[in-house]
Amino acid sequence: MTFKTLSAYMPILRWGRTYDRQAFSGDLLAAVIVTIMLIPQSLAYAMLAGLPPEAGLYASIAPIILYAIFGTSRALAVGPVAVVSLMTAAAISTIADQGSMGYAIAALTLAGLSGVMLLTLGLFKLGFLANFLSHPVIAGFITASGILIAASQIKHVLGISASGDTLPELLGSIVENLGETNLVTLAIGLLATAFLFWVRKGFKPLLRRLGLGPRPADMVAKAGPVFAVVLTTLAVWGFRLDAQGVSIVGAVPQGLPPLTLPSFSPDLIGLLVLPAFLISIIGFVESISVAQTLAAKKRQRIDPDQELIGLGAANIGAAFTGGYPVTGGFARSVVNFDAGAETPAAGAFTAIGLGIAALALTPLIYFLPIATLSATIIVAVLSLVDFSILKRSWSYSKPDFIAVAATMLFTLGMGVETGVSAGVILSIGLHLYRTSRPHIAEVGLVPGTQHFRNIHRHKVLTDPGLLTIRIDESLYFANARFLEDYVYDRLAAEGSIHDVILMCSAINEIDLSALESLEAINHRLGEMGVTLHLSELKGPVMDGLKKSTFLEALTGQVFLSQYDAWVRLVSQSSDVWPRPVAVPSG
Amino acid sequence: MTFKTLSAYMPILRWGRTYDRQAFSGDLLAAVIVTIMLIPQSLAYAMLAGLPPEAGLYASIAPIILYAIFGTSRALAVGPVAVVSLMTAAAISTIADQGSMGYAIAALTLAGLSGVMLLTLGLFKLGFLANFLSHPVIAGFITASGILIAASQIKHVLGISASGDTLPELLGSIVENLGETNLVTLAIGLLATAFLFWVRKGFKPLLRRLGLGPRPADMVAKAGPVFAVVLTTLAVWGFRLDAQGVSIVGAVPQGLPPLTLPSFSPDLIGLLVLPAFLISIIGFVESISVAQTLAAKKRQRIDPDQELIGLGAANIGAAFTGGYPVTGGFARSVVNFDAGAETPAAGAFTAIGLGIAALALTPLIYFLPIATLSATIIVAVLSLVDFSILKRSWSYSKPDFIAVAATMLFTLGMGVETGVSAGVILSIGLHLYRTSRPHIAEVGLVPGTQHFRNIHRHKVLTDPGLLTIRIDESLYFANARFLEDYVYDRLAAEGSIHDVILMCSAINEIDLSALESLEAINHRLGEMGVTLHLSELKGPVMDGLKKSTFLEALTGQVFLSQYDAWVRLVSQSSDVWPRPVAVPSG
Repeated sequence: MTFKTLSAYMPILRWGRTYDRQAFSGDLLAAVIVTIMLIPQSLAYAMLAGLPPEAGLYASIAPIILYAIFGTSRALAVGPVAVVSLMTAAAISTIADQGSMGYAIAALTLAGLSGVMLLTLGLFKLGFLANFLSHPVIAGFITASGILIAASQIKHVLGISASGDTLPELLGSIVENLGETNLVTLAIGLLATAFLFWVRKGFKPLLRRLGLGPRPADMVAKAGPVFAVVLTTLAVWGFRLDAQGVSIVGAVPQGLPPLTLPSFSPDLIGLLVLPAFLISIIGFVESISVAQTLAAKKRQRIDPDQELIGLGAANIGAAFTGGYPVTGGFARSVVNFDAGAETPAAGAFTAIGLGIAALALTPLIYFLPIATLSATIIVAVLSLVDFSILKRSWSYSKPDFIAVAATMLFTLGMGVETGVSAGVILSIGLHLYRTSRPHIAEVGLVPGTQHFRNIHRHKVLTDPGLLTIRIDESLYFANARFLEDYVYDRLAAEGSIHDVILMCSAINEIDLSALESLEAINHRLGEMGVTLHLSELKGPVMDGLKKSTFLEALTGQVFLSQYDAWVRLVSQSSDVWPRPVAVPSG
Repeated sequence: MTFKTLSAYMPILRWGRTYDRQAFSGDLLAAVIVTIMLIPQSLAYAMLAGLPPEAGLYASIAPIILYAIFGTSRALAVGPVAVVSLMTAAAISTIADQGSMGYAIAALTLAGLSGVMLLTLGLFKLGFLANFLSHPVIAGFITASGILIAASQIKHVLGISASGDTLPELLGSIVENLGETNLVTLAIGLLATAFLFWVRKGFKPLLRRLGLGPRPADMVAKAGPVFAVVLTTLAVWGFRLDAQGVSIVGAVPQGLPPLTLPSFSPDLIGLLVLPAFLISIIGFVESISVAQTLAAKKRQRIDPDQELIGLGAANIGAAFTGGYPVTGGFARSVVNFDAGAETPAAGAFTAIGLGIAALALTPLIYFLPIATLSATIIVAVLSLVDFSILKRSWSYSKPDFIAVAATMLFTLGMGVETGVSAGVILSIGLHLYRTSRPHIAEVGLVPGTQHFRNIHRHKVLTDPGLLTIRIDESLYFANARFLEDYVYDRLAAEGSIHDVILMCSAINEIDLSALESLEAINHRLGEMGVTLHLSELKGPVMDGLKKSTFLEALTGQVFLSQYDAWVRLVSQSSDVWPRPVAVPSG
């Protein structure tokens, strides 16, 4: 393997060679800010995934370093994210009990499987698969997941126990146990939530009024959640609120990420294959859209297949260092970018910061209330909730609306896996349905041009002996019979037609089923004394037809352009030419 | 409900009113011939389905009458057919033991479920669903099923026991038990098979040489299988070959079809839903293609949605009269048609003939050897086996070939349900894959015309400041990102371009994901100082875009034709026009 091919798979070899002092200082500052932001977030997302808090820190260390080596985005920050954490919990909670050894091993295995899948997709350049998740389906899924996640955290704010993978289950369970609400916990939870919402909007202006410059104010505001963590922890410690029933994080092991092994049990792998695939695709889509948004701002390019390799390596890293599935997060990547990260080295520095936190700071969070972590999650995910996609899709495209609405309803009502699967299946199904009943237009000549348009939309010239139909779809098995029926019905209605032209400008493919239909149409029209012609066949389609016997059997001709066909066929029927009949637009 | 709407759902009310003596005599003759042909066939197919022989007769009586009332084909003969019988056996054999009461009830339930599904599809006009089964996939499936069916009958010809749902299982099981071969059975089986093959080719010429007219010779030849039945039954009876270990049909109850009830157990229905759906679709496709072929010969029309209702009624009838899933059969329908059937009344007369057989003739088949029935099946299904689809699809379209080959391999290696599902999923998947990476052509003006073609295939005029790309596919979620990448890459490579035209003649739809991509392209090109135009947008697509804000944000214009765009934009860049640069075809 030459250096060139090696560096194709390890972008670090490219940017690493020109790394300088300026890039270093930008990366270092970004790393400090992201580290401060990530500490509470990592703990909270681990809890969302049903894992002990340290798993969130571990999942942020090795994966960040591996992504820095293999990823192409200069600003992406990889680690636990809300939606993937929820999907992890949904996948594992049916297999093992939360808190058990089996649960943690299943999380490692899920990360490992997901890593292998991402790596495989990347090496075989199958990143296009993610395109089958349409933008509206993603938007609907993220919004519904945000609601589901927020709902799952209500119990911690109330200090009660509740469970469920769907919104009705969660709400039902909360209502049932509402009587057990711990008022001290509730007070902490509500204050933390209110504070965090305020931090988002009001903290920066306050800091500015206090005399901070715009950039420092921005940086300090980003650390807002840390204040919530520090203040509530101090409150619990000072007033011994844990004795009042406030749940706290408790003892967290001190030390660097442990070396762990995922399970290789075929049974467990069998159960996790589908969730791992969904997590991989969702994680990839989330990550690549963040990466592309940020790269576009600096005119950099993201290679989707190499991104798959980077994310695959990160997840395999998570599987061997006590983590769980990770991906590129939106909020942290934006913070990283805004704070001036120049290269993926910023990620490596963040990993060092988190490593120090895991080594030294865990005793300090013993009294951190769970309700504060939940408040962090609620505030973070509610920013993902955005119903505008419903309105946009309703006004632009009903099939897209159906796919979005179904994705949301299924995600809320039947859980994340069913939700995203339903969205994908429905959008593919609706697309196939539409292409199975293509728009077919009868066209005529726009006077004074060589251009042909729909006789019902434009004032065009037509000829009573000549029927020209433009099929607005590739011909394939799903619509092959539709065309046959259309042509037969159309000819049955009009007796004067002696030539039919299929204008093929919108036909991008003719598969074997459609070829058989064309052969049947040609044969049947022949029996009726009607000649079949084709016009504006595209190169690749023509190449295909040449491999069959259709062109020899064709009763008419293939014309380069529809205008050629018109000139030839209309002038042949001498009683009509040169006075074609004008049809008014309808 | 008026008579008109009633007759729309009961075609019998239309043809019944003009029924006359001539139609009656045609129908009667056809019925006699089809009845003679159906007796051995019905017994044999019931055996293939794992049911007692009388189930085959019962499945031919009520269903034929119900189809005569509700169906639209004048010649279709409904009853048990080979492929559906095999699918029935495959569906039920995992649920109940052959010969048990549970097995028979499962068969009734399968017919009932299939009937309800067909009826529902018909009432909701969902017949187009069958189009997703492409011609090549059907051809591959029928061929593989034929092989599987023939293989399943070898044991009866050998007089051994063997089992299996796949070719390897069947052949392995046969080889294992080969030592138990009963030589007398084998002799009967081979002779019957040889005789039946000979009947297909040599019997009619012989009858003609013996002085029969062409039509009577044809009719008598059709009854060939009955001779095999009579001769082998007499041989077994005369020489008491059953005492030598030759398996015989044995006692068959005498009487009209019994009234039966399918099961309404949700568990059983749950197990049978998928097989019932596959049987419904396969049966419908087989039936409708026979019906359309025969209708085309007499210029009659088949209404696919009404056919679904007819087949649905037939299957519900089968469920309540001791039958199992039925559909329109190819061989019997052709015989019916050739024998001169004029109306569906021929089917009703056939039902009467079979009713008489069930009442009176069953004692006569006590000594009928099973090996003869197997020979009937083998000879019938081997005529379905046709590998030419492999060659045709290989030379015309590789994706079709892949779908066919996979359908065959999965059907033979993993059974009928997996086979047909694999074929459908693969053909849809390959179609989506192709549309996700559309052909994109850069086009120029064909000199002396207003027509634009690919610069790499035609000698065309282009302008260095103007890039025109024709996207040969509808824009939807699966290829939205592909277009973005293409445009950015293309512009990165060439600095002189100031106008980009997307020629939209092949774009039949722009969904919300693609709209977002177009907005992104427009925005990004705007930042680069490049103007984006569209040309030849189709009416329905334009209607869609008008519902969005895209057209207001568009930096350039929408041109009716590509030529309009060319004239306007090339004349603007005054240093080029009127001398566009000729690019040689490459």
